[in-house]
Amino acid sequence: MKKFLNDPKQFVPEFLEGIELASGGALKYEPKYNLIYRADMPSDDKVTIIQGSGSGHEPAHTMIVGKGMLDGACPGDVFAGPPVDFVVETAKLLNSKKGVLQIVNNYTGDRTAWEMGRELCEAEGMKIDTLLVNDDVAVKDSTWTVGRRGVAGNFFVIKAVGAAAEKGAELDELVTLGKKVIANVRTMGIALTSCTPPTRGTPLFEIADDEMEVGIGIHGEPGRQRTKLVSANEIVDILLDAIVPDLPFKAGDEVALMVNGLGGTPISELYLLYGIAHKKLAAKGIKVFRSYVGEYCTSLEMAGAHISLLKVDEEIKEMLLAPADIAYRVF
Amino acid sequence: MKKFLNDPKQFVPEFLEGIELASGGALKYEPKYNLIYRADMPSDDKVTIIQGSGSGHEPAHTMIVGKGMLDGACPGDVFAGPPVDFVVETAKLLNSKKGVLQIVNNYTGDRTAWEMGRELCEAEGMKIDTLLVNDDVAVKDSTWTVGRRGVAGNFFVIKAVGAAAEKGAELDELVTLGKKVIANVRTMGIALTSCTPPTRGTPLFEIADDEMEVGIGIHGEPGRQRTKLVSANEIVDILLDAIVPDLPFKAGDEVALMVNGLGGTPISELYLLYGIAHKKLAAKGIKVFRSYVGEYCTSLEMAGAHISLLKVDEEIKEMLLAPADIAYRVF
Repeated sequence: MKKFLNDPKQFVPEFLEGIELASGGALKYEPKYNLIYRADMPSDDKVTIIQGSGSGHEPAHTMIVGKGMLDGACPGDVFAGPPVDFVVETAKLLNSKKGVLQIVNNYTGDRTAWEMGRELCEAEGMKIDTLLVNDDVAVKDSTWTVGRRGVAGNFFVIKAVGAAAEKGAELDELVTLGKKVIANVRTMGIALTSCTPPTRGTPLFEIADDEMEVGIGIHGEPGRQRTKLVSANEIVDILLDAIVPDLPFKAGDEVALMVNGLGGTPISELYLLYGIAHKKLAAKGIKVFRSYVGEYCTSLEMAGAHISLLKVDEEIKEMLLAPADIAYRVF
Repeated sequence: MKKFLNDPKQFVPEFLEGIELASGGALKYEPKYNLIYRADMPSDDKVTIIQGSGSGHEPAHTMIVGKGMLDGACPGDVFAGPPVDFVVETAKLLNSKKGVLQIVNNYTGDRTAWEMGRELCEAEGMKIDTLLVNDDVAVKDSTWTVGRRGVAGNFFVIKAVGAAAEKGAELDELVTLGKKVIANVRTMGIALTSCTPPTRGTPLFEIADDEMEVGIGIHGEPGRQRTKLVSANEIVDILLDAIVPDLPFKAGDEVALMVNGLGGTPISELYLLYGIAHKKLAAKGIKVFRSYVGEYCTSLEMAGAHISLLKVDEEIKEMLLAPADIAYRVF
């Protein structure tokens, strides 16, 4: 295992502390709940938006906390959903009279914690609702889920409802908007290498030098099939042939096109995939409204990529273009 | 070699085309010179700023072209400086009456091309000047350079002079500002793994599972020493012990602190390093003005990181905080 690491058990708290220190006072860190939250936590004028899946998917979700995105994120350990008390205490600490919106990626561990947490919050009289993200078309059920998994499309859900919340939207309006984004986003990915959780110390799975995993999960869980590695052109075909007919995306549609790196793939390769996907979509009459190329939801140091397509309308476009201010920035 | 790739010889043109397509019209691509440049190329009211080192270091330099940063970038092939004609034609195409500023990282191949290119431009009556970036304290001379190498600190030089150029600064003022940034920035890095250029197909160097290369170059060239892998705390000590006394950075100084990923290291590990470095600097009385955590200058898929420190004054701070608009963005 070759990582920048002290005690593997302190990996999550140490990088979370780094996020707080790097924020220049914009973010606070509460170690008891692995919680990163806005220091300028808004008052009761704004619905609070929270998330917390496993760690190991950074920048999701602790690095996209800030104005116009999440108000707080409370991940569990690497590839482990947060305990129920993280969920409850986060909601209580960041509670707003306008309500709390949980955005949950569809994994059994995450759902259990967030559903139980929601019940406990409701029992205390809190106003709380939930969005369930399930954009991954690779598998119907998986080793980690009943139903489709939530992956990189989660970013679009947070960006849209985060922007709407800043504009003063009510909880029910955010749920309606979030469900629209979820209904219109589809994702699938391919892995070229495995990854190694710090406390485990060995790769999650083995994959041969000439193989790829089609429809990979973000915890190394299997996808559709293990095949020989093929060219980038063929890989984009495999992904778009799964994604495009699923909605379906049709000629005349406008989309946001994301190429998400899984952690170990250089951004040059992501742009190479982007160019191919953009041209193949144009040939189908599907127009890219805006591009997203980089790391949005990773799997530690895994080499691989997702392609995500989000069909946009005027409302979604406005929310995607709205300003935001998060730790995950270039300058 | 596990990469998203078609023909290895087409790797650079294909990812450059992806950058153009992803830009939504903001950037243009001229394949003859591997040139990415601003579609809204300003008139003669602004000094033109150009760069072009080897490819394989993305987002440097083709993904940081845009308002407030570079006006154009014309890289060579992977880890190869641009040919002289790229340099000359880029300067001619983007020429401004206020002049052209070349920002060159100190590698023998790059310097030869840019110096010869400058002479040819001057012979045609163009106003042109050069900044030479050499922030890497690891080695005095290297297999690729006479003098220190230019690495991640290059980002700060571009950010500062790019912002000043947008505000209307003259060529000589930009050179003065750029030299001040270069005089105040220091960097060193450590690699945990090697990397594989696409047309070569095999790793650039071998490194054992329990080893790290201290003072690595961004083309895999050797640094100070090969040692056993140590903890993140010890790694930060090694880097700061080389960087801090070199300027020297002193109690009371304000700095920009960058932790740059070399391509294969997850951002969670970069934030872990950041937190350690921030605290160690605070203990020395050195205050972080602003953090930069992510990938700025990579070496393909190499796992590793640089730490860069830039001592800031009021002028540099203003330029670092000025707006910019580049392809390398989150949303």
